[in-house]
Amino acid sequence: MDKLKQKKDFIQTFIKNLKPSKILWSDDTFHKINSFSSQGKMIRGSLFLRTYELLGGKKDFISVAAALEITQSGILAHDDVMDKDDFRRGLKTIHKQYEEHINNTHFGYSMAICFGDIAFFESFKHIPKKAIKIYSEEMINCAYGQMQDIHYTYSDKEITKKQILEVYRLKTARYTFSLPMMLAAKLANQNVKTYEKLGEHLGIIFQIIDDDIGIFGTKEEIGKTPGSDIKENKKTIHRLLLLKKYPNLKKYYGYEVSEKELELIRNKTLEIKKEIDEIITHHQTKIDEIIKKIPSPTKEFIQNLSKYNLSRRK
Amino acid sequence: MDKLKQKKDFIQTFIKNLKPSKILWSDDTFHKINSFSSQGKMIRGSLFLRTYELLGGKKDFISVAAALEITQSGILAHDDVMDKDDFRRGLKTIHKQYEEHINNTHFGYSMAICFGDIAFFESFKHIPKKAIKIYSEEMINCAYGQMQDIHYTYSDKEITKKQILEVYRLKTARYTFSLPMMLAAKLANQNVKTYEKLGEHLGIIFQIIDDDIGIFGTKEEIGKTPGSDIKENKKTIHRLLLLKKYPNLKKYYGYEVSEKELELIRNKTLEIKKEIDEIITHHQTKIDEIIKKIPSPTKEFIQNLSKYNLSRRK
Repeated sequence: MDKLKQKKDFIQTFIKNLKPSKILWSDDTFHKINSFSSQGKMIRGSLFLRTYELLGGKKDFISVAAALEITQSGILAHDDVMDKDDFRRGLKTIHKQYEEHINNTHFGYSMAICFGDIAFFESFKHIPKKAIKIYSEEMINCAYGQMQDIHYTYSDKEITKKQILEVYRLKTARYTFSLPMMLAAKLANQNVKTYEKLGEHLGIIFQIIDDDIGIFGTKEEIGKTPGSDIKENKKTIHRLLLLKKYPNLKKYYGYEVSEKELELIRNKTLEIKKEIDEIITHHQTKIDEIIKKIPSPTKEFIQNLSKYNLSRRK
Repeated sequence: MDKLKQKKDFIQTFIKNLKPSKILWSDDTFHKINSFSSQGKMIRGSLFLRTYELLGGKKDFISVAAALEITQSGILAHDDVMDKDDFRRGLKTIHKQYEEHINNTHFGYSMAICFGDIAFFESFKHIPKKAIKIYSEEMINCAYGQMQDIHYTYSDKEITKKQILEVYRLKTARYTFSLPMMLAAKLANQNVKTYEKLGEHLGIIFQIIDDDIGIFGTKEEIGKTPGSDIKENKKTIHRLLLLKKYPNLKKYYGYEVSEKELELIRNKTLEIKKEIDEIITHHQTKIDEIIKKIPSPTKEFIQNLSKYNLSRRK
């Protein structure tokens, strides 16, 4: 995993060296793209680069990795407007940063929408022609996942495990894991399909662990307030299983929980740990099956990635 | 101009035939892209196609024209969230359409942000590699223009004619006129620079006429409520010149004006018509100079386009 982490510096340097134009707001936008992305883990860009080189790719595609991270900053800017989040990656969210210019919430939202759009347009400059279709389609899938997620969040109806996992598949798994690996496979002329499915299973586990960290982690570990999923009434697997066992806990969802209330939810969540683990194990089994088909040294890398994915706490 | 108008059918058919995926919200999104874009004039896509064929281009690039129109629907969806507009092209705006699912304003905004993002991602699938840089950069310029426009709209400070024209240049002129013609020139292997400047002048005139129609036109002609620029306190050239002459009219800006108040503003605006015409004439002179350098039959087409641009009332 060390080699994966080393990639971040290269990607960051590429993003830092992008030249803004002389147009008003351009300097500010590129500064925000740079500072915001530098706070991220850059898993998408790093995963792409490492997979590409392990699959035998010889070209310098740091630009493609940077495009994935620039897009990610755009996605987060838009998502944070939708979720009305104030903090992200330990910083003020993009719309909150813009709010500082003029003390108006909708001004902040509007500027953050433009910021995200610019990030998307910039990213396409760096995607090779043969990868544009995969890139565009996965970004579209991600947006459908976000639409479903928003719709479920606003809806009073309870949703099923299948519906929750479909959001995870589109919004997180395909976007965070399938897309970087599919791009790597495509550009290294390898089988794209293998990495598509692999990414789905890795990503679903990643999201479930993320939900877990969102409940049990500290503010420093998650870069935002613990329990924010509860406040936003996010329809997570944790929420589904918890409310199945303790329907009366529903009253806490959609509100900012106190530390004591969060502690209660944490304690009760421990009781559904086994069921959560079963879902994780199901996807881990699928991963182990797919890994068998992957050639070395990519195989060993994916095995390590998969282990890290299971054990991470931030 | 008839040949220009005929293009719309081809573009619309292309957009109508785009296949949504089986994912939730995909059908709905493509239906909205289709119905929303069909209500537009499709000047960007048509201008691209006609210029390309007149410049000797032989390939079928209806897909590129469609991409411009799909993007335009995305841009409008985002702009309407920023401006909190309810009507566009005679229809409910995209965020208002989503609001119908769940009666919540922020839900509508959020879905419209996703809708715009999907439109952008879809559009890139149809842009040839050699045109991606022009396309991305002009879309970024357009977003900077939008940022400036929003910032000026929220700001209490009065802005100069130069600042207003810079917004027009970026947000309307380069995006609506330069971009389609630059794409056409690039793909037909002609001089891109000529069309870049030409588009700026054509587009600035287009925007000033648009502002004029926004004050003097009927709801049917403009597809939204007359006087909406006044309500939104848009920093237009009309507003600048009007308030220079009649500073006490400032009280009407930022509010929904009554029919009587709108009539008053219309009457006073007639008094600054000469100054508006002078700005238009300045840009028309530049256009006439550039047109001389353009080969026939593109020259005659641009001359007609320029005449239409000056005389349109909707």
